[in-house]
Amino acid sequence: MQVENDRVFLRQAIELAKNGVEQGAGGPFGCIVVKDSLVIGRGYNQVTSTNDPTAHAEVVAIRDACRHLGSYQLTDCDLYTSCEPCPMCLGAIYWARPRRVIYACTRHEAATAGFDDAVIYQEINVPVDERKIPFDHQALNEAAALFRLWKDKGDKKLY
Amino acid sequence: MQVENDRVFLRQAIELAKNGVEQGAGGPFGCIVVKDSLVIGRGYNQVTSTNDPTAHAEVVAIRDACRHLGSYQLTDCDLYTSCEPCPMCLGAIYWARPRRVIYACTRHEAATAGFDDAVIYQEINVPVDERKIPFDHQALNEAAALFRLWKDKGDKKLY
Repeated sequence: MQVENDRVFLRQAIELAKNGVEQGAGGPFGCIVVKDSLVIGRGYNQVTSTNDPTAHAEVVAIRDACRHLGSYQLTDCDLYTSCEPCPMCLGAIYWARPRRVIYACTRHEAATAGFDDAVIYQEINVPVDERKIPFDHQALNEAAALFRLWKDKGDKKLY
Repeated sequence: MQVENDRVFLRQAIELAKNGVEQGAGGPFGCIVVKDSLVIGRGYNQVTSTNDPTAHAEVVAIRDACRHLGSYQLTDCDLYTSCEPCPMCLGAIYWARPRRVIYACTRHEAATAGFDDAVIYQEINVPVDERKIPFDHQALNEAAALFRLWKDKGDKKLY
């Protein structure tokens, strides 16, 4: 039963992806967020049409669902995506904290279509000073003071 | 000379972070994007004030800079961030492809302030079926067909 329900929602994510490609919105990826069997967020890749490198299907759907809920947390929500998330989207998912993620294609299938998330998956584990994009650490007292400011703040909202 | 220039820009990123905390926008993080010595994108964490779990300083600054450039690529741009990026932001950076990233605090300092990016860094390397958030793979023919649709598309824009 759950598998059959999952497939119904996965097909909706895939349909979004297909429409996105046909419209020329971006890459072949779609995502929906479901809560209590209702679709509360939708997204398809819009990187090239909106000039936003972060507009992956999952990020767009998470933002849409959070707007709908008026919350930055996707508690008790399930996220259906046409393809296994890239590291950016995986990070977005962990920050949004849905209950479950269901995906159809794997990152390896995505790679054969030219979406090489593997490079980013590898780079995450490379020491910062050996990355393809150079990462320079420059310690500054003012930056350390930011965390003290945060720790001392009385009315802060944690996330 | 470059180090001194870097510090000037890093301090601007830190100032944005500070203003964000003081306004109650979100966590203590700021970021700017610089091209040809000009600031072309700005961001501070706005997760809790905008109910957007993806509104980290880097993502906001990347989106702002890309809007400014009318491009989804940050070619020849440098990204200054008050703190080492979390995996979501690291992914966003790799998709945006700036020339260089300069950061002030480390992820370990962030962890002591309660921002536990380490969990997400760990989870990325955990097999999908052993993650804290369950990831279910369900292969579907319709999903595989998406990549064929993409491969066969004549006028597609790569990213």
